[in-house]
Amino acid sequence: MRYKITLEYEGTNTLGWQRQLNGPSIQEYLENALSALTSSNSKSEVQGAGRTDAGVHALAQVAHFDLERDIEDWKLREAINFYLREQNAPVVVLEIEKTDENFNARFSAVGRGYIYRILNRRTPPVLEKNRVWWVPVPLNIEKMRQGAEHLLGYHDFSSFRAAACQAKSPLKTLDKIDISTKGDEIIFEVEARSFLHHQVRNMVGTLKLVGDGHLHPEDIKIILEAKNRKAAGPTAPACGLYLSKVMY
Amino acid sequence: MRYKITLEYEGTNTLGWQRQLNGPSIQEYLENALSALTSSNSKSEVQGAGRTDAGVHALAQVAHFDLERDIEDWKLREAINFYLREQNAPVVVLEIEKTDENFNARFSAVGRGYIYRILNRRTPPVLEKNRVWWVPVPLNIEKMRQGAEHLLGYHDFSSFRAAACQAKSPLKTLDKIDISTKGDEIIFEVEARSFLHHQVRNMVGTLKLVGDGHLHPEDIKIILEAKNRKAAGPTAPACGLYLSKVMY
Repeated sequence: MRYKITLEYEGTNTLGWQRQLNGPSIQEYLENALSALTSSNSKSEVQGAGRTDAGVHALAQVAHFDLERDIEDWKLREAINFYLREQNAPVVVLEIEKTDENFNARFSAVGRGYIYRILNRRTPPVLEKNRVWWVPVPLNIEKMRQGAEHLLGYHDFSSFRAAACQAKSPLKTLDKIDISTKGDEIIFEVEARSFLHHQVRNMVGTLKLVGDGHLHPEDIKIILEAKNRKAAGPTAPACGLYLSKVMY
Repeated sequence: MRYKITLEYEGTNTLGWQRQLNGPSIQEYLENALSALTSSNSKSEVQGAGRTDAGVHALAQVAHFDLERDIEDWKLREAINFYLREQNAPVVVLEIEKTDENFNARFSAVGRGYIYRILNRRTPPVLEKNRVWWVPVPLNIEKMRQGAEHLLGYHDFSSFRAAACQAKSPLKTLDKIDISTKGDEIIFEVEARSFLHHQVRNMVGTLKLVGDGHLHPEDIKIILEAKNRKAAGPTAPACGLYLSKVMY
């Protein structure tokens, strides 16, 4: 049986989604929970729709795995959550459903959505610590919106691509980049079929430079055309980023 | 010079607002910061608008204190925040302003506002852990609203008063109790000139019993009229409560 799960997690004290030898990962917590559940030494692999980096959160990551047994959806969800809590894991299963064996959380996905949160005020956060990027200098929202418009659509995003990125091509279509405010927060909502490694954080880090006046909105177009990572701004911190949806 | 400060804090790992011998408190963190700032052994007392319990948060607590020196507002804010960060304190100063010596954060206040957050979904929170009360059974919002209406206005709130409450009278006027939703969250907003000890948490704990069907909305009227703590429901957990404003 193949199961599709939707997950919420808090990435602060993990090495990110992917299983690693030198510390805890979301994937490992889930695979440990499945091993405990099936009382088996052979690990069921859990495959995620996207690999999130250390410190990045998820409101609705999607993954799939196979189990020999056919278990009622709600029972399986409660059981996995039980074994996650036993590990004091920063991840919970929000939803679970059986799916056909052709479903693949990563390759069946037709779109991904991320949210990036900036706290824009003089004083650092305490309630939202590790949940937002704290930017103490005032940012001009309207200018950031003007800059962001240049990123919409089909482009070579090499300027916003991490050196370690394994994607075959830097050509991507950005379907949405909305910037809204809520109190002292600035919230970016972005959507695309897929993203390059660090693309969202590099776009936000560069738009922040538009917001604080170091760049003009039109500079974003020039940076994009440079197709060179050095042309863009720094990578925004992981703690403000949330994988918010995966579309199938 | 008397200064008025507005504070944000995260109450999880503190004993609450008030200085205590057996653990950290918000008041103590602030008084330590002032001692460090003035390089003085004599403590400046910081008086808050209200004492919050262990685990309760603040979006905008107000307090006052006196300093001999006249320091520019923004410099003093940065300095206090520096010394708070040195203590790794879960509190920051959002705003600071000089005020006249007759101002008293507690006695000059003419109103207080609180927010209470319930996360109403099957799975426990990880991103909002210690920030919401997790209630896994579905709650009926409309019935809770009907129940809440009975609490509005001038009443004897003895049924919602903690045994340890030091208020002279249980007679209070509840000016506002609004219940809204946001995703899986249910948010209570309440306002009054002042509240009895545990009043908000006891009202929420009782309305939750209306939401899950253990009580009828009209039972709230009967509970209120009983003027007996035993008639009402349990105290809702501290972690969902936020002191959100103090009015002068």
